[in-house]
Amino acid sequence: MGILLDCGLNVVRNDEFVDHEGGYLFMRTAFDGEVDAQDLEHRVQQVLPVGARVRFSHRGRKRIVILAGKEPHCLGDLLVRYRYGNLNADVLAVISNHDTLQGLVEAHRVPFHLVSHVNLERDAHEGRVLELLDFYGPEYLVLAKYMRVLTASFVERFAERIINIHHSFLPAFVGKNPYRQAYERGVKLIGATAHFVTTDLDEGPIIAQAVTDVSHRFTARNMAEEGRIIEKAVISKALDLVCEDRVFVYANRTVIL
Amino acid sequence: MGILLDCGLNVVRNDEFVDHEGGYLFMRTAFDGEVDAQDLEHRVQQVLPVGARVRFSHRGRKRIVILAGKEPHCLGDLLVRYRYGNLNADVLAVISNHDTLQGLVEAHRVPFHLVSHVNLERDAHEGRVLELLDFYGPEYLVLAKYMRVLTASFVERFAERIINIHHSFLPAFVGKNPYRQAYERGVKLIGATAHFVTTDLDEGPIIAQAVTDVSHRFTARNMAEEGRIIEKAVISKALDLVCEDRVFVYANRTVIL
Amino acid sequence: MGILLDCGLNVVRNDEFVDHEGGYLFMRTAFDGEVDAQDLEHRVQQVLPVGARVRFSHRGRKRIVILAGKEPHCLGDLLVRYRYGNLNADVLAVISNHDTLQGLVEAHRVPFHLVSHVNLERDAHEGRVLELLDFYGPEYLVLAKYMRVLTASFVERFAERIINIHHSFLPAFVGKNPYRQAYERGVKLIGATAHFVTTDLDEGPIIAQAVTDVSHRFTARNMAEEGRIIEKAVISKALDLVCEDRVFVYANRTVIL
Amino acid sequence: MGILLDCGLNVVRNDEFVDHEGGYLFMRTAFDGEVDAQDLEHRVQQVLPVGARVRFSHRGRKRIVILAGKEPHCLGDLLVRYRYGNLNADVLAVISNHDTLQGLVEAHRVPFHLVSHVNLERDAHEGRVLELLDFYGPEYLVLAKYMRVLTASFVERFAERIINIHHSFLPAFVGKNPYRQAYERGVKLIGATAHFVTTDLDEGPIIAQAVTDVSHRFTARNMAEEGRIIEKAVISKALDLVCEDRVFVYANRTVIL
Repeated sequence: MGILLDCGLNVVRNDEFVDHEGGYLFMRTAFDGEVDAQDLEHRVQQVLPVGARVRFSHRGRKRIVILAGKEPHCLGDLLVRYRYGNLNADVLAVISNHDTLQGLVEAHRVPFHLVSHVNLERDAHEGRVLELLDFYGPEYLVLAKYMRVLTASFVERFAERIINIHHSFLPAFVGKNPYRQAYERGVKLIGATAHFVTTDLDEGPIIAQAVTDVSHRFTARNMAEEGRIIEKAVISKALDLVCEDRVFVYANRTVIL
Repeated sequence: MGILLDCGLNVVRNDEFVDHEGGYLFMRTAFDGEVDAQDLEHRVQQVLPVGARVRFSHRGRKRIVILAGKEPHCLGDLLVRYRYGNLNADVLAVISNHDTLQGLVEAHRVPFHLVSHVNLERDAHEGRVLELLDFYGPEYLVLAKYMRVLTASFVERFAERIINIHHSFLPAFVGKNPYRQAYERGVKLIGATAHFVTTDLDEGPIIAQAVTDVSHRFTARNMAEEGRIIEKAVISKALDLVCEDRVFVYANRTVIL
Repeated sequence: MGILLDCGLNVVRNDEFVDHEGGYLFMRTAFDGEVDAQDLEHRVQQVLPVGARVRFSHRGRKRIVILAGKEPHCLGDLLVRYRYGNLNADVLAVISNHDTLQGLVEAHRVPFHLVSHVNLERDAHEGRVLELLDFYGPEYLVLAKYMRVLTASFVERFAERIINIHHSFLPAFVGKNPYRQAYERGVKLIGATAHFVTTDLDEGPIIAQAVTDVSHRFTARNMAEEGRIIEKAVISKALDLVCEDRVFVYANRTVIL
Repeated sequence: MGILLDCGLNVVRNDEFVDHEGGYLFMRTAFDGEVDAQDLEHRVQQVLPVGARVRFSHRGRKRIVILAGKEPHCLGDLLVRYRYGNLNADVLAVISNHDTLQGLVEAHRVPFHLVSHVNLERDAHEGRVLELLDFYGPEYLVLAKYMRVLTASFVERFAERIINIHHSFLPAFVGKNPYRQAYERGVKLIGATAHFVTTDLDEGPIIAQAVTDVSHRFTARNMAEEGRIIEKAVISKALDLVCEDRVFVYANRTVIL
């Protein structure tokens, strides 16, 4: 704080969180003003204990690439927000293994890349996706109902930088067909979970969750329809939090300041 | 019921509601099969008490026209659902008094009509809108953040056929700038309300409502941003209910069967 | 329906549900008037297909016994509702394996029975509980945070008649310490589930569920405190539905009419 | 912060909020350790700008008196929490203008005072209540469905120290019979609002709000029954926040840190 004031910077927002159980302190300070980032980082590091991590970032728009499948609702929502300046990110491109959503993406004048997985080993398919990602250099990847499991090496390359939407209230109903599972179990609420992708499928740090009521009148298909509404809301909210640099990850959990 | 069975029709769903206070009975029966609608209506009317209203409708897609303003979120959501076959309605056209959303609409290959209100009396402007509506002949009008007040004659012409989304939890914050009002009042939840439009502004029968948490950290602008998520969810849900012929209106209330 | 009219009975409410996937029809009819129940049941059975189950019940108050542990919130809520006539049931007695809540129960002039499990085999302990239940003859048992696992023979004796509250959003976090599990997983919502008890622990038909927001600021203990609010709300609601004869069980699911 | 460290105090939690629109900064610091409060306050005031308000308080239990009417649900909930050590407050006494809840209060061994309003002017009745309050010296008053309007002089004497529960989602349905009003308006959600009492009825700063779904099937009476569940949850939560010194009031709004 003192350092920021010395630099003539104006603190806009400051939030802290102490995890007494784990012995961690998190602090997020947003400030306005011009500054030599390297010099500031150096000065901040000097007053912090050894081992403390500091992360600086501009408040500007993040660069993202969206990976999509066949379902339009999450992607469509993000594209409309992007087009009208309501997303704190630039959608550099959309990559999909199906051409179903090509028209939707191109209608918003965003580059669309079809990378079919047909007749390709998983590694080979991912290799082609990675070539595109190398070209675009996104800060974050958003999996907008992208239904393919990523390899460990892919995930590790984008550690804490891949955001997925899972169509259940995790940890309930991991894996395939969560709405079918929810129907069979007879739940009275269904949910959606946005999380960072880790090498353990559906086990990564949770960023946001929401639920909505269902009843015995809902078939598995009705649940899927109703679930779309919260899926797109949850992925949208999670992306907003990430783009505002408000999400910190530790111990497979998120702290949101 | 007996009549339906006599006609060889298969009852798919049957719901009833008795309003003991008001002395009304509502019944909705969905059935499969081929039938002479006029003959069926005649036979049903004969067994019902005098004054009972019967309404028949096909389970098919409704014909709708959307009136929009400058905000893309509700319109964009409906268009994506329409494009991918997830809306039980055909969007015949979008009419707006601004050209802001023209690109969005045309990207989805839906006709867009700009009817500017500049330099026009309210009646003259509505006259031009009505000409378009006469051409398209929609069953329902959806006001997707259309920010103009409609005249009584317009509203009466489409009685119980205009669905509006109001950006507050009605009856709180009627009128202008509900998010500003919500901010000033310091509420901890903000809401959205879909309702049929009547000649009393913001007083029509409510179809669906939802709320979301806010805190002291939300400015009026943040509330508006957060509110968009529920606005599009609520108008979408209300339109679904209407398109499935599940909404009945009486005594300025809705019964949803 | 015709039969009810023939008997001069007045239909107050009628609800139906067709499970097309499973091939079941459920119908619940509430009526006013005096009737010979046996005669009515006979006449109704005659017009129904073979295999159809009919259940008659009076709209009166159910007879229940509550099994409790050490936590007062669910029990206390039910007792206050009972004392002031806001529960559609008579609380015949409370049985607990701890004396923690004795004062609370007796303050409401409800019989309290301490059946300690110390130095007793599970069967022997249950035997003593069953003696009390034989004496009181309740229609339903409510497990208000009763933390002991019931034997299969006990459960079968009260099939579809034992209502439990589990302190998680089932099927997430079955078994012990669900709030600890929720904390470790870093969820953003916690839940509570009321369900009928079956021989599969935490797997019975779900009657009601609810969730509430949590954040990284919640320790496992904070989650437990916050969870109590929804636990008591959910068990209360589930009991209301059961006492109004609105809950039907099939295929390990509930239909609520 | 520096001062706290100089005093050898251990900061447990620190939260800040800057209202850029209004030009206010709020900061709440919780710390452990022994300290001369007066000396600390003096030192803190010296480094703060003129006009800054500092409030010190012990983390201990608050002293409260509850004013009640005839409805037991909010009062019963608070008493059970108090009895079992789950309330961060001591309930010194309950005062009511009816004897309906006397048994409930005395069952929990809390003093009950009946102060009937019959044949008394409002001022005279309040005078008797004030005598009792002078005797008990509570820090906060909780109106647990106390249905009498307080005079301005009474309210001013306990400014920002009276917490009320209003049975609607304020500012909707101020005044009498909010559930009846909600029924007439045909809303799809009903709510409850806990707020500090000011001289403007139902217009004070909001501390907590919640809503729950209703449908056309709910009569005004059903809404009242359903509403009780959220009323007791909301007043309970608001009192918790106040007792933890987390609620700050300004500009008729609350900041909750």
